[in-house]
Amino acid sequence: MDGPYLAAVDIGGTKITVSIANISGILVKVYRPVQLEGDNLAVTTQVDSMVGYACEQTGIGKDEISAIGVSTCGPFGIRDGELVLVAPNLCGGLAKEREIIPNDWTEIPLQSELSRIYNKIHIENDGISAVTAERMFGAGKGEDNVVYITWSTGIGSGAYVDGRPIKGKNGNAPHIGHVYLVDDGPRCGCGNFGDMEALASGVAIARDYGSKVTAGGTTSEDMTAEGVTAEGVTAVDVTTEGATTECVTAEDVFNLLRKGDPKAESVIANAARYFARGLVSINAILDTRVFIIGGSVFMNNRHILLPMVKEEFCKSFPALSKDVEFRPCALDSHLGDLAALCLVMPDDWVRQWQEKRPWEFAPEPIVLGTNSKLK
Amino acid sequence: MDGPYLAAVDIGGTKITVSIANISGILVKVYRPVQLEGDNLAVTTQVDSMVGYACEQTGIGKDEISAIGVSTCGPFGIRDGELVLVAPNLCGGLAKEREIIPNDWTEIPLQSELSRIYNKIHIENDGISAVTAERMFGAGKGEDNVVYITWSTGIGSGAYVDGRPIKGKNGNAPHIGHVYLVDDGPRCGCGNFGDMEALASGVAIARDYGSKVTAGGTTSEDMTAEGVTAEGVTAVDVTTEGATTECVTAEDVFNLLRKGDPKAESVIANAARYFARGLVSINAILDTRVFIIGGSVFMNNRHILLPMVKEEFCKSFPALSKDVEFRPCALDSHLGDLAALCLVMPDDWVRQWQEKRPWEFAPEPIVLGTNSKLK
Repeated sequence: MDGPYLAAVDIGGTKITVSIANISGILVKVYRPVQLEGDNLAVTTQVDSMVGYACEQTGIGKDEISAIGVSTCGPFGIRDGELVLVAPNLCGGLAKEREIIPNDWTEIPLQSELSRIYNKIHIENDGISAVTAERMFGAGKGEDNVVYITWSTGIGSGAYVDGRPIKGKNGNAPHIGHVYLVDDGPRCGCGNFGDMEALASGVAIARDYGSKVTAGGTTSEDMTAEGVTAEGVTAVDVTTEGATTECVTAEDVFNLLRKGDPKAESVIANAARYFARGLVSINAILDTRVFIIGGSVFMNNRHILLPMVKEEFCKSFPALSKDVEFRPCALDSHLGDLAALCLVMPDDWVRQWQEKRPWEFAPEPIVLGTNSKLK
Repeated sequence: MDGPYLAAVDIGGTKITVSIANISGILVKVYRPVQLEGDNLAVTTQVDSMVGYACEQTGIGKDEISAIGVSTCGPFGIRDGELVLVAPNLCGGLAKEREIIPNDWTEIPLQSELSRIYNKIHIENDGISAVTAERMFGAGKGEDNVVYITWSTGIGSGAYVDGRPIKGKNGNAPHIGHVYLVDDGPRCGCGNFGDMEALASGVAIARDYGSKVTAGGTTSEDMTAEGVTAEGVTAVDVTTEGATTECVTAEDVFNLLRKGDPKAESVIANAARYFARGLVSINAILDTRVFIIGGSVFMNNRHILLPMVKEEFCKSFPALSKDVEFRPCALDSHLGDLAALCLVMPDDWVRQWQEKRPWEFAPEPIVLGTNSKLK
């Protein structure tokens, strides 16, 4: 397999994915839960050892990697001119609920550490890199004004305005999840009350549904929100006269809606309404033409959600809301790899990949456990 | 007075201002209420005749104008590739309260009409042109990430991100006044319920205060919101046992606050809180460094408003809200002229104007009544 080779690193709140590619396609893909213990170099050390492991699998040396694209959850800060991660879902010292993150980091020195090891590195927040990939290979081709939104556990976004990606002073534009939509609403992981992520994310849908009652191993159609934990993240079982009360996931709520559960309908309609109102706000600010929506909450349920979102969006100021298009994310499960790769991809690769779409033939990922020994 | 000459046209919701300048400074300035009767060419005809009048006053011919900068209220639409105004405060056919706008226009063909008459014309929304002027001559010098916000009868804005103005598909970015902040809030002129303009603008402050009771020609300290008109725009007198109930303006409410009126304090604190929450939203999306705030509501009361706005803003997600600066608009009453002029100003003028600040010595404006005869 001929070089040059590129590495793609996708850092999320729960796992890190590393891929190696040459012009013909993706050669290997590895993922592993993100390492949140130890000092605040743990994440960069993990990235480096995963790149090393992926290189070994490809049969090349790390020194044969000509550039690394890093797509990562944010937000970012700048420390001594270099980008640091100040992400509350990775840094225990920033999180509002410290017990779930086993460290006290206040920042992760991503750029300074990785650029000590690698010559050519390009880091962007996962919103910007996703919209860049969709614009290069997916649903945003040829669009000068386009916003990508991921509707998943959380809500994130990236935008091109007037043909250019917008970044802002620390590379955090646009963090759409943190626009306010109501007074005194539920609390977001970021500490805001009543922002879009707190009202419409997958976590919010699970929280708002509460729990379902399971009796004798089969799910009952009777649902109750009483005696429920807040986040829908940890399952808590409460046995009362043989029945089990169990926290649901967002996907459970959609399945309940498909079975005609009225509470699920109401919770999802509410989330879709707030999601749409968040889009009204970002459209008022960016005057966009196309919204590309991705993320597991949306992609798994788009036939339910898209009509709801469009209906609410179109109720807003027509001079701004008309002529806006909504498209599902086209790259879907390939988005993470392509988002990181496109940050460093040479033009001749881009042309070849647009034509041949080699990501569709990528090998199955190698899944590493938390305790895998890496050099 | 030597040429070349530039014309600056500032189209607002209530008046049009035209100035003529050469490299030494502003030579003449004329303003007149905006003509809202007749067909939808009335506004462009008025602009043309005002430019003609201003040229006469300067002793030059219209053909000596080398370029015209037009700064105008929006929003914009595109019709046959050319910019049209679709502004509900000018076009009766778009307004939700038609009785106050004496026409049924749905758009004003600004670009096609003006470019038939003038060779070189540059039209921008007043937010973009204002932030461009503040960045060139005022409080935004050297800033790559800066947002200008006008807090006045309405709320408007313009933004530079990564050193470039953002425009969007129709040139409407960023229309910050129309971001949603609450569910089911008061109605904005644009038709939205619960957006920033409906909650924090001068009109909102007057509406929320309601009316004051005047007895025997002196203003009583007793205030009441009962029996009040909605908008605070038209004064309605209701005489009950010798007392007069009168709608207030936003400025009245600030004066009442200065006298210790608790209701005025509460209304203004509320408006400032929503204004700040709107800034949180635009900052989440643009990751800006500097907010420049102008407009009559803010500039006349900034010592009251700025601490309130900062306090609420700083309650939001610290990773995004810290390191954001707030500055008052530096160009103030000169902003309209400079905003329109800077759109077409050659580089050598810019350097000379930055050094000599000739706008500070501009002549007093000539005020024309609605019925003034212009060619």
